[in-house]
Amino acid sequence: MNAWIIAVGSEFLTPFKVDTNSLAITERLNAIGCHVRFKSVVGDDVQDLETQFRRAVGTVDVLICTGGLGPTEDDVTRDALSHALDLPLEEQPAIVEAIRQRFERRGLPMAAINRRQAMVPKGAVVLENPRGTAPGLWLARDGTSIAILPGPPREMIPMLEHVVATYLAPRSDGAGLFRRVLKITGRSESDVDSVCGPIYTPWSHAAIPIATTILAAMGQIELHLTATALSSAAAMAALDDAVGQLERALGASVYSTDGRPLERVIGDLLRERAMTISVAESCSGGLLASRLTDVPGSSAYFDRGVVCYSNAAKIELLHVPPGMIDEYGAVSEPVAHAMAVGVRAGADSSIGVGITGIAGPDGGTTDKPVGTVAIAVVTAVAARVQTFQFLGAREMVKFQSTQAAMNMLRLLLREPPPVRLH
Amino acid sequence: MNAWIIAVGSEFLTPFKVDTNSLAITERLNAIGCHVRFKSVVGDDVQDLETQFRRAVGTVDVLICTGGLGPTEDDVTRDALSHALDLPLEEQPAIVEAIRQRFERRGLPMAAINRRQAMVPKGAVVLENPRGTAPGLWLARDGTSIAILPGPPREMIPMLEHVVATYLAPRSDGAGLFRRVLKITGRSESDVDSVCGPIYTPWSHAAIPIATTILAAMGQIELHLTATALSSAAAMAALDDAVGQLERALGASVYSTDGRPLERVIGDLLRERAMTISVAESCSGGLLASRLTDVPGSSAYFDRGVVCYSNAAKIELLHVPPGMIDEYGAVSEPVAHAMAVGVRAGADSSIGVGITGIAGPDGGTTDKPVGTVAIAVVTAVAARVQTFQFLGAREMVKFQSTQAAMNMLRLLLREPPPVRLH
Repeated sequence: MNAWIIAVGSEFLTPFKVDTNSLAITERLNAIGCHVRFKSVVGDDVQDLETQFRRAVGTVDVLICTGGLGPTEDDVTRDALSHALDLPLEEQPAIVEAIRQRFERRGLPMAAINRRQAMVPKGAVVLENPRGTAPGLWLARDGTSIAILPGPPREMIPMLEHVVATYLAPRSDGAGLFRRVLKITGRSESDVDSVCGPIYTPWSHAAIPIATTILAAMGQIELHLTATALSSAAAMAALDDAVGQLERALGASVYSTDGRPLERVIGDLLRERAMTISVAESCSGGLLASRLTDVPGSSAYFDRGVVCYSNAAKIELLHVPPGMIDEYGAVSEPVAHAMAVGVRAGADSSIGVGITGIAGPDGGTTDKPVGTVAIAVVTAVAARVQTFQFLGAREMVKFQSTQAAMNMLRLLLREPPPVRLH
Repeated sequence: MNAWIIAVGSEFLTPFKVDTNSLAITERLNAIGCHVRFKSVVGDDVQDLETQFRRAVGTVDVLICTGGLGPTEDDVTRDALSHALDLPLEEQPAIVEAIRQRFERRGLPMAAINRRQAMVPKGAVVLENPRGTAPGLWLARDGTSIAILPGPPREMIPMLEHVVATYLAPRSDGAGLFRRVLKITGRSESDVDSVCGPIYTPWSHAAIPIATTILAAMGQIELHLTATALSSAAAMAALDDAVGQLERALGASVYSTDGRPLERVIGDLLRERAMTISVAESCSGGLLASRLTDVPGSSAYFDRGVVCYSNAAKIELLHVPPGMIDEYGAVSEPVAHAMAVGVRAGADSSIGVGITGIAGPDGGTTDKPVGTVAIAVVTAVAARVQTFQFLGAREMVKFQSTQAAMNMLRLLLREPPPVRLH
């Protein structure tokens, strides 16, 4: 089964508001194996909406339309549906009575305009709305099941659940959609695709088909796998196998297969190893400390952070030798290393991280352009230092710096412990 | 002029993600008087997208399509456009070369699949993408101007702005929608509405009508004013008057009427006064330092930040007296004050800020529940200390703490300088 979701409302055509009803609708439809093929937003315009209805009916198995069922002139969904399907509107006395009683219970007279809400296209089933005055509508035409629901989520959701359980689930073949996400860092989108494409392409034709989508965001790539299957157990087994294949192909660059963000992966690694961390940041400006402390319970392993924009702060708080800054520059691997060593020593933590770079837009040079960032991760027995060249505006350089630092730390923590000679 | 916005991407048909590019696009189109009539979301399906293109072309004045321009098999926008308009795709060697150079600058070879991004429907104008590998496309057919742009917002926005300025604004009749935003902190939405509602309600029927929308987000309220007028000068005069009326009614709680975020307002106030700042954070975990250093040029006034989760860090780095923590608790006004004084003294900065609180979800007590946050702002001659009770999850408590600290600082900086007796 596939579906088309239409959101009606001129407010969704302004710069201020997006329709989010469609997310909740998609979740309920996916659960019965119905995937969403199109979404549309139409303003409070009877002709534009009529056109949308005409296009959807006969094209998809299920059409869900939300909004435009209120009592005012702006609310055109009933009229548009009546025109599109050529079904005359008829006032249903039972609905008028239900609305009147609803007002009465609140001690109010029913406004005359509310009679509009009792107009029903001939032959449509009326869906009761326990939480509002606008009833919904249900009908079928040319192979398309049509549900017309009110816009406010608290009214819409229970009515949707009724529609799914009563009308749609029995028509579904029982198959559902099941999802897993791989999160990857340290590789480009095209690199991930060239490694994984040959693996996942055949899956779309497997016994349990799995569709794969690559999403590239700043500093990370996500692979979304969606399996369609009759049984949850079979889907999960197929997804486990698929995730395993991709993990083996991508190696250590996969940092999460269960939805955890990188800062939580780091937190879990530190907790498992009973290690603590302190961080010294220049160009990332506190963002690494902030991301690490976004994780509930991070006070168990996060001791302190130092944001040292000025050279004075690097010298006073982290004991970076002034001569080192003169010799190598504040943005250099020796200084990143000294910052990591300095913050770790001060905090007496297991791990120290140092980040120094040029976030821009000013401060770049030919040798060290904007986006140059040196990062060091040190423990009692190991040190990793690396220089990166990030692209993008100031906030992106900051974010990518923190992403790279956490990834260096993750890779270091994954290594087997070094052989200790004493 | 009217427009249709198409977002391409199967991820926007899952329960997890909505397209938000269309908001930024709508804002730019509205600014030249072009209103958005339809929005559609289509998956990575070449036939479905081709169908959408066919429907939009000839129906609206402007079609903006985002996404599906990446290098992978999933990226079908070029193919769908080629089919819909019956224009063959041709590889443009100049684009191949530009992509190759882009990879080269990052020390990487160009993957073979990136050649797909150089395929251009015959006759289309290529739009340069300074921030990514995917060029955009521009063409016109049957009265519809068509812009095809990449999906990542940081690539899309500058290209959109180029398209609006170069191709669309000259076609507009000059009637535009003009907007101003008042940003407010320290008041609730209903408080703002009860103060401002009687002022702005009559504006919708004025000679130059102004529509007002209240948007409430975490830690701040925005009032969006939209005027419709033929002349920019008339609209701006009407909006200036409207903004002035609301500012007088709301007083000091309005922190910005020109779009600047709070961290930039703070930065400008510090710069004007040639003052420097250092911050000491516990529960906000570095987020205040990170927000302050999001502002380009903040190194001129931001000296250092200290994130002291542990009591040891508060004592060692900030010289908070251990007895004070024992007596009042780490989350207390005396400790917030001592943190602000300590970080200011260490940095020798004009201003010190101290934040200590309970971000949750654990750590709350009956006396000091989750969300309790003490904040201090100190200068050489003044000190402000205040305790807040914030609602919401961990990240919301963190954000609101930084918002409140910056607002305390803003109000302090706005005061006339104290009379100095010596």
